[in-house]
Amino acid sequence: MRIRILATGGTFDKEYDELTGRLFFQDTHVPEMLRRGRARLDLELETVTMMDSLDMTADDRARIVKRCRDAEERAIVITHGTDTMVETAHALADARLDVKTIVLTGAMIPYAFGSSDGLFNLGSALSFAQVLPAGVYVAMNGQHFAWNACRKNRATGVFERTT
Amino acid sequence: MRIRILATGGTFDKEYDELTGRLFFQDTHVPEMLRRGRARLDLELETVTMMDSLDMTADDRARIVKRCRDAEERAIVITHGTDTMVETAHALADARLDVKTIVLTGAMIPYAFGSSDGLFNLGSALSFAQVLPAGVYVAMNGQHFAWNACRKNRATGVFERTT
Amino acid sequence: MRIRILATGGTFDKEYDELTGRLFFQDTHVPEMLRRGRARLDLELETVTMMDSLDMTADDRARIVKRCRDAEERAIVITHGTDTMVETAHALADARLDVKTIVLTGAMIPYAFGSSDGLFNLGSALSFAQVLPAGVYVAMNGQHFAWNACRKNRATGVFERTT
Amino acid sequence: MRIRILATGGTFDKEYDELTGRLFFQDTHVPEMLRRGRARLDLELETVTMMDSLDMTADDRARIVKRCRDAEERAIVITHGTDTMVETAHALADARLDVKTIVLTGAMIPYAFGSSDGLFNLGSALSFAQVLPAGVYVAMNGQHFAWNACRKNRATGVFERTT
Repeated sequence: MRIRILATGGTFDKEYDELTGRLFFQDTHVPEMLRRGRARLDLELETVTMMDSLDMTADDRARIVKRCRDAEERAIVITHGTDTMVETAHALADARLDVKTIVLTGAMIPYAFGSSDGLFNLGSALSFAQVLPAGVYVAMNGQHFAWNACRKNRATGVFERTT
Repeated sequence: MRIRILATGGTFDKEYDELTGRLFFQDTHVPEMLRRGRARLDLELETVTMMDSLDMTADDRARIVKRCRDAEERAIVITHGTDTMVETAHALADARLDVKTIVLTGAMIPYAFGSSDGLFNLGSALSFAQVLPAGVYVAMNGQHFAWNACRKNRATGVFERTT
Repeated sequence: MRIRILATGGTFDKEYDELTGRLFFQDTHVPEMLRRGRARLDLELETVTMMDSLDMTADDRARIVKRCRDAEERAIVITHGTDTMVETAHALADARLDVKTIVLTGAMIPYAFGSSDGLFNLGSALSFAQVLPAGVYVAMNGQHFAWNACRKNRATGVFERTT
Repeated sequence: MRIRILATGGTFDKEYDELTGRLFFQDTHVPEMLRRGRARLDLELETVTMMDSLDMTADDRARIVKRCRDAEERAIVITHGTDTMVETAHALADARLDVKTIVLTGAMIPYAFGSSDGLFNLGSALSFAQVLPAGVYVAMNGQHFAWNACRKNRATGVFERTT
C-alpha cells in the first residue's frame, strides 16, 4: 500500500529567516520528519504549494483537488495550514473522489521550532490514512474528524467536533 | 471512547543522569508528549513499570497483561522498550483479551534527547488504537503489525513483517 | 562580582504565537537560558523593554542608558536585537559611564526555536563582561568588538570589525 | 588571533547508540556547535581523543599536554569530561606552558540531547581564552577558575572555588 503525501505549507513548514527576522516558507520539512519518525512506508511526497493557508485561493484548492484526483494512490495525506484546512477538506469532499482515503493534517507550532506538534500529527495522519475507509478527514489533536463534522476553534487552537 | 495508556519504560522514557553520566528511568514523558501533541483524547495514563525491556521478566509481563485485562477501556496503548516488545505482544495475545484493541509502541531515541522518533510513534499508536479492530498490534515505523507477524531487526533497528 | 543583565528583547526573546501565527514578545528567556547554562554567577536580571530593536526609539535607548547609569554593578550584559545593537552601543558610549564594562549581545535565531545561537552568545557575553576593562562592547559570533569598531553585515548576518 | 580547540570527548560529545541503547563517542560535536554559535573566529580544531574523562590515563593527559606544547596558538580551549577536568588542568599547569592561555570546559548534558549546557560553556570558554592572561583555567557555570582553585562538586554537579 502506497501513500501519497501532498505538502502545501502551513505552520508545519514555516521557518525563521534570520536575515529579515520574518517567518517564511522554503522547502517542506516532511522528509526530515519522516526520517526522524523512522517511517518505513511506501511513500510518494509531492509539494503542491508552500503557503500560509490563509492566503490560499480557490485556484490553489483546485490544484490540490486535481493532484488528489490524479494520484494513483488510494491513501493520501495532505499537510496543510490549520486555518483553512476544513475549507480544503470541503473542496475535496465536493470532488467526490470516492475511492480515496484523504487525511489532512497540520501543526500549531512550526516543525523547525523544536517544540512542534507536527511530528505527532504526521504520525497520526499517516496511521489514519492506512486504516480509515474512503473519505475526507482531518487528523488533529490525536483525533480524526469527518470533513463535515469539525472546525478549528480559533480561540483555543484545537479542533472540535461540530456534530 | 476512552484510551488507556500503559507506560512501561523503554527508550521512550530514558533520561540522562548528569551526576552519574548514565541513562536511567524516572517518570514517564508521556504526559509531556501528549501536551506537545496537543492531544484532545479521553485518556487514562498509568505507569506499570519504568524499565529497559531487556530486563523485563515473565512477572513484569504478567502485570502488564493483568492491567490490560482489568482495564475498562477497549483501546489500550502500551509504551514499551523495542527489544522485547514483540514478546510482550505475544503474552498479551495468549491472554485472549478478545474485545480489546491493544497497540504497543516505543522509540529508538529517548524523547528527552530532542531528536526522538517517540512523538511520531505515539501519534501513530494512538491513532491505530482508535480504528483497528480488536487484537494485539505493534505500531512502529509508521506501520502497524499483527503481534504474530513482526520482529525487530536488531541490525537496522526497524520492525519488519515476518509473514 | 555581580553582573546586571538588562533584557530588551530582540530575536533572543521572540516567540511564536500559535493562535495568530505571528512572532511576538512575552517574557524574556534569559532565566531559562541561565538555568540551561547552569550559570553560577551573582546575577541581577531586569527587563527594560521587550521589543524588536528596529522599533527602538531614542527614548527607549535613553531608558537603557539610564538603567546602566543607575545600576550598582560594574559589569552589565544587555540582550538586544542585532539590527540596532551598535546604535545602542553608541548611545551608551556617549553617556560616558567610564567605570562600567557593558557588553551587548543578541541572537540571529530565537532561543525558543531550538537551533538558536543565543546560548552561545549569552555564555560569551557574560564571560567578556567579567574580564574586559571598562568600556562598551558588542559580543557576537564568539568575538568582542569595541562599540565604535563594528557593524552588522545585513547581507550575511554577522558582525564585522570596521577598523 | 588564532585559537586552537582540542576535543577530548566527555559528556559534550556523548551520543545515544540506538541499536545498543548505550551512550558512546563518535565524532566531536564542536564543529556543529561552532556553526550554531555562528562563531567567526580563526579556529583550528583537533580531536586528541574521544573518551569519558573517568577513563583517562596519565598517557592520555600526556598527549593533551604535548598537543598544547606543540601548538603554535597562544590561546587553547580544551573540551573535556568534567569529572577529571581539574586533574588535566593540573597536568597542564605542571608543564609550565607559560605563554599560553589554556581554558578547559565541558558539559553536564550531552550536546546531542537538546537541553545541553555545552553551547553556553563553549561560548564562555572561547571568550575567556581571548582575554585572560596566560595560565590554565577551567570555564564552567559561566565562571572561570584558576587550575588550582576549583573542584567539581560531585553531589551538585557544579564547579566551586576552593580558595
